[in-house]
Amino acid sequence: MSQGDSESSPSRFRARVHVYPRREILDPQGRAIGEALARLGFDEVAGVRAGKGFEVELTATDKSAAVAQLERMCSELLANPITEDYSVELLEDSAR
Amino acid sequence: MSQGDSESSPSRFRARVHVYPRREILDPQGRAIGEALARLGFDEVAGVRAGKGFEVELTATDKSAAVAQLERMCSELLANPITEDYSVELLEDSAR
Repeated sequence: MSQGDSESSPSRFRARVHVYPRREILDPQGRAIGEALARLGFDEVAGVRAGKGFEVELTATDKSAAVAQLERMCSELLANPITEDYSVELLEDSAR
Repeated sequence: MSQGDSESSPSRFRARVHVYPRREILDPQGRAIGEALARLGFDEVAGVRAGKGFEVELTATDKSAAVAQLERMCSELLANPITEDYSVELLEDSAR
């Protein structure tokens, strides 16, 4: 009945952020890994790109607010907008 | 009608491999990133773990064969079984 109760309380979300070199950017690390896989006998591999991943736990009022915050984190810190693409994925067991 | 036709022809799959430090392992990089996010004003972040990602294109006879191959790649090259956990994800637009 207090003012606090009428606001939606924030939920906890778990998300993954994927950061990969842009398609048009050379990816020597990915190429080296692809070649190492071929040497190990994985002949069926046609290409590898090597990226970074971040598992982030955060609180937000709802899913869209969580995604918006995560995208801000990417553009401000986690990804280099010149050379990298990023995507944000909320994990299934989020929002407990 | 030839022998070749009766075999299932391999399809192309696109997958992501996620490699993260195990929960019980310290993750100084993730911690530093969490602290940097807090300094940038992202107070809602409760934790960050920093990992690696690989986008792999490969051919396989079916989805389960693709996943099995990717898991072999993880245990043989992409992940360190002592310190890292991995998961494999086939991307939606796979199997063209």
